[in-house]
Amino acid sequence: MHFSLGIDFGTNSVRALVVRCADGMEFGAAVANYPSGKQGVIIDPRDHNVARQHPGDLLACMERCVKEALGQAARRKGFRSSLIVGIGVDTTGSSPIPVDASNRALGLLPKWKKNPDAQCWLWKDHTSWQEAARITELAAKHRPEYIAKCGNTYSSEWFWSKIWRCLKTAPDVFDAAYSWVEMCDWVPSVLCGVEDPLKIKRGICAAGHKALYCDEWGGLPDKKFLSLLSPKLAQLRDRLYDKAHDANTAAGQLSSAWAAKLGLPVGIPVAIGEMDVHYGAIGSGIREGTLVKVIGTSTCDCAVVPASKKVKDIPGICGIVKGAILPGFFGIEAGQSAVGDIFKWWIESVCEGSDALYASLAKEAATLEPGGSGLLALDWNNGNRTVLVDPMLSGLLLGTTLHTTKAEIYRALIEATAFGARTIIERIEAYGVPVKRIVCAGGIAEKNPLLMQIYADVTGRTMLVAGSSQACALGSAVSAAVLAGVFKDFPAAQKAMTSLKDIEYKPRPAARKTYNRLFALYQKLHDSFGGVNRKADLSGVMKELLAIKSQSRK
Amino acid sequence: MHFSLGIDFGTNSVRALVVRCADGMEFGAAVANYPSGKQGVIIDPRDHNVARQHPGDLLACMERCVKEALGQAARRKGFRSSLIVGIGVDTTGSSPIPVDASNRALGLLPKWKKNPDAQCWLWKDHTSWQEAARITELAAKHRPEYIAKCGNTYSSEWFWSKIWRCLKTAPDVFDAAYSWVEMCDWVPSVLCGVEDPLKIKRGICAAGHKALYCDEWGGLPDKKFLSLLSPKLAQLRDRLYDKAHDANTAAGQLSSAWAAKLGLPVGIPVAIGEMDVHYGAIGSGIREGTLVKVIGTSTCDCAVVPASKKVKDIPGICGIVKGAILPGFFGIEAGQSAVGDIFKWWIESVCEGSDALYASLAKEAATLEPGGSGLLALDWNNGNRTVLVDPMLSGLLLGTTLHTTKAEIYRALIEATAFGARTIIERIEAYGVPVKRIVCAGGIAEKNPLLMQIYADVTGRTMLVAGSSQACALGSAVSAAVLAGVFKDFPAAQKAMTSLKDIEYKPRPAARKTYNRLFALYQKLHDSFGGVNRKADLSGVMKELLAIKSQSRK
Repeated sequence: MHFSLGIDFGTNSVRALVVRCADGMEFGAAVANYPSGKQGVIIDPRDHNVARQHPGDLLACMERCVKEALGQAARRKGFRSSLIVGIGVDTTGSSPIPVDASNRALGLLPKWKKNPDAQCWLWKDHTSWQEAARITELAAKHRPEYIAKCGNTYSSEWFWSKIWRCLKTAPDVFDAAYSWVEMCDWVPSVLCGVEDPLKIKRGICAAGHKALYCDEWGGLPDKKFLSLLSPKLAQLRDRLYDKAHDANTAAGQLSSAWAAKLGLPVGIPVAIGEMDVHYGAIGSGIREGTLVKVIGTSTCDCAVVPASKKVKDIPGICGIVKGAILPGFFGIEAGQSAVGDIFKWWIESVCEGSDALYASLAKEAATLEPGGSGLLALDWNNGNRTVLVDPMLSGLLLGTTLHTTKAEIYRALIEATAFGARTIIERIEAYGVPVKRIVCAGGIAEKNPLLMQIYADVTGRTMLVAGSSQACALGSAVSAAVLAGVFKDFPAAQKAMTSLKDIEYKPRPAARKTYNRLFALYQKLHDSFGGVNRKADLSGVMKELLAIKSQSRK
Repeated sequence: MHFSLGIDFGTNSVRALVVRCADGMEFGAAVANYPSGKQGVIIDPRDHNVARQHPGDLLACMERCVKEALGQAARRKGFRSSLIVGIGVDTTGSSPIPVDASNRALGLLPKWKKNPDAQCWLWKDHTSWQEAARITELAAKHRPEYIAKCGNTYSSEWFWSKIWRCLKTAPDVFDAAYSWVEMCDWVPSVLCGVEDPLKIKRGICAAGHKALYCDEWGGLPDKKFLSLLSPKLAQLRDRLYDKAHDANTAAGQLSSAWAAKLGLPVGIPVAIGEMDVHYGAIGSGIREGTLVKVIGTSTCDCAVVPASKKVKDIPGICGIVKGAILPGFFGIEAGQSAVGDIFKWWIESVCEGSDALYASLAKEAATLEPGGSGLLALDWNNGNRTVLVDPMLSGLLLGTTLHTTKAEIYRALIEATAFGARTIIERIEAYGVPVKRIVCAGGIAEKNPLLMQIYADVTGRTMLVAGSSQACALGSAVSAAVLAGVFKDFPAAQKAMTSLKDIEYKPRPAARKTYNRLFALYQKLHDSFGGVNRKADLSGVMKELLAIKSQSRK
């Protein structure tokens, strides 16, 4: 009997999952909330763009929840900690951490402990939007191939933007950092006791999607290009890495120190770290033809195409990276910068509601007909990641009257995210990546049947739901099991360890017809405000909404 | 010592005002709320466009509040009811009432009492939008001059649209109606005991602004044109009126029956009825060069130009009517379909707040800088009256993020109505009607200093506030005093009886600069969604809002 351990570092908490390799049964699961900042995120009331994370939270909370999960498992028959064959880790990203020459995160050192710039620069930190724009500009001019695979736009959420920003605004931190390590690479390196940043096994997933790494051009961006940003960034390149690895490679073996701390066998393999949604895609049963949507505060969409096939660059897609997600496949990632966050904004922040309001709005919104409110929204409250790749876009709500209700607005916001989801699917398919099956994972996929039905109606596709509520941690555990040799490859491990829930959301033809009309209007607004169409005729939008509204009442 | 009585019929209540003619001092004031429907408005939960009013409410509430106001005045030294020299009446409009051959409102008769279609069709009833569009179409083709003076668009709020709608959807009511009378004409006719609809003295104000009446083309629309709508409307023309009158004419003399009911002298003159804002403009001291804004649930803007001058037709303006408002002047009316109603929608309906929330949002919104929220809204939740004249437009809110607050949205909605106000001023001035002085009246002008300051900043004009809180009722009282011969003309009466409050809201240069940038964006959205510009480049709107936002923080 084999077990593997998946550890999933989210935005506000870390969770540990003990899984039986034979059938994916969860023997233990625990969560630990980060204590620092606001729900684990260090913010700056003067600048909404700031989002940092204390590295000490990561380690302390990991230790706590792993122990708790192991304790839970130990109360079940057939489990002993010595049966754990491997560990997999996934984290948010791009969340780079400045480290010293001994691979200690600066944020752990007394000198830097209280300096927000010396902490982990969390994925949703958007302070470096100007740097991102400049990188896009420079790459477009000098290295167009660099950004062709990430939708021709480099993001403020990504590795180089953040490090460059740090160099500009906190040069003392930059100078103190020997290297910078993605959270998904750093945690495994700590577990394996790696004390030299140059010896960290870095994953292709974060490297390829966030740091412009590609084997084709020799790894990270070349020094000449980096020196266009700053000579100091060119120098930093020597203290990063030359080669990134897919999930067939181990990050290392569990160190005796951490084995003792966690009560696990010394030397078991630790899988290469991947970003949460990528292991989440594995835990949701990703394969060729399947789109996995991890729907939470934001949404990530993942697809894979066999490495033997030719994949075109897809404009506006966050990344196409060989070896990301599954070894032997191109990994394709897209996403929406805010989904659950938009509902949270509306219900908790604007309407000042609690769980009860979520429930009552959901109930009321479920009684509304598609198009019945006359509302249309753009899901850009946190910018647009795919397909416009523009964090400087913002939300829009159109069609309000003196009778518009908060439930109608809630439903319009759900519909807006569904239109955003459809836009992504259509873009991927337009460039030759078929979407034959959609599996949704994440809290919203499980808890919001209204949203799932709207997604089915808007996209015209059946929405399936991943079997595990911890798809990311499960995917990490799958990777650990493959690495430990329990399975011959990922497909075999996925077959044994992952599943689907019984429920299926099927598109309803009448709703779909109405949503097709609304989606046409959404596209008009999308293209107009997104800059795709600079000669937009929007004169009919409000009237078409009224026409749809009056017809929805028949 | 002379006194006059002004009676002002609002949407939800009627108020009576006893005024000393010598100086406009208010000796008595009382309000009575209509008991029927929802706050006096008979609605239909299945159709938000329906808004009717029970004529019985008008008479019963008038009697009650007039008596109460007289009772109040009687407790003050120097007043006796016998010193009342005249009565003036203003009402909402266009609010036509179907009456029988004895000038009894159908809604007062047992047979029709419960039939909503037999009641007064209140100004804000929008059921007849299709009829309005058809009238616009037919007039454009056959009688362009008819609609040239009302912005080239006939409104669903107006006389012919409503009556035609009644003919189509409630033919029994239409057939039972001998005639139709505007509320502002009907109430004076009742006070004067007029028992034949053909003998009612109708005011030029409602006739010219709402019923396409003009002396130039012989009064109401000709029968040939009306028969294009329906032969029955052409027949109805014979049972309406040939001649409408300005405020130099009396509607009649107070009947003995109503004199007894109210405790007033028999035979005192009753002034011709005008729509509330028109008498409100008089009560606010309107004169050449002055724009009076009556700011309430909606806003009406009034200006006058001496009849000796040439006035161009102004596209999108509700009406330019000789003799409306002040005798001897062209009356120009414009307006915004919802102002206070938009704030009420946001605060009371969406945010479910009460007076306390109004206060706290106002306080918080007042601390925000112009442009500081990054938000921009269109004030079209109830359509656009001026300058687009399109009830089928709807509201829009743009620039929301995950941090947008309800106070920011409240402020953005105020700003949107300010941009709407500026659009009207600029349109009027562009066609040769100078606006040298702006006087605001109505509850919002008195109670919302934040809004008043924003209006000053957005328009770049000083905002003055009418001295009386009951500007409409005061204007009615002014008209009654002129008619009774207390003053030689309206300017003399206005000089004696009307005043301004001490407060002045002056534009602040820095705010104005920012608002100029925001107004440019407002115009882009306005013209694009309003159909003025069918090739709009909106790609920069969200980014310009962000730029303004970041600069507002310096």
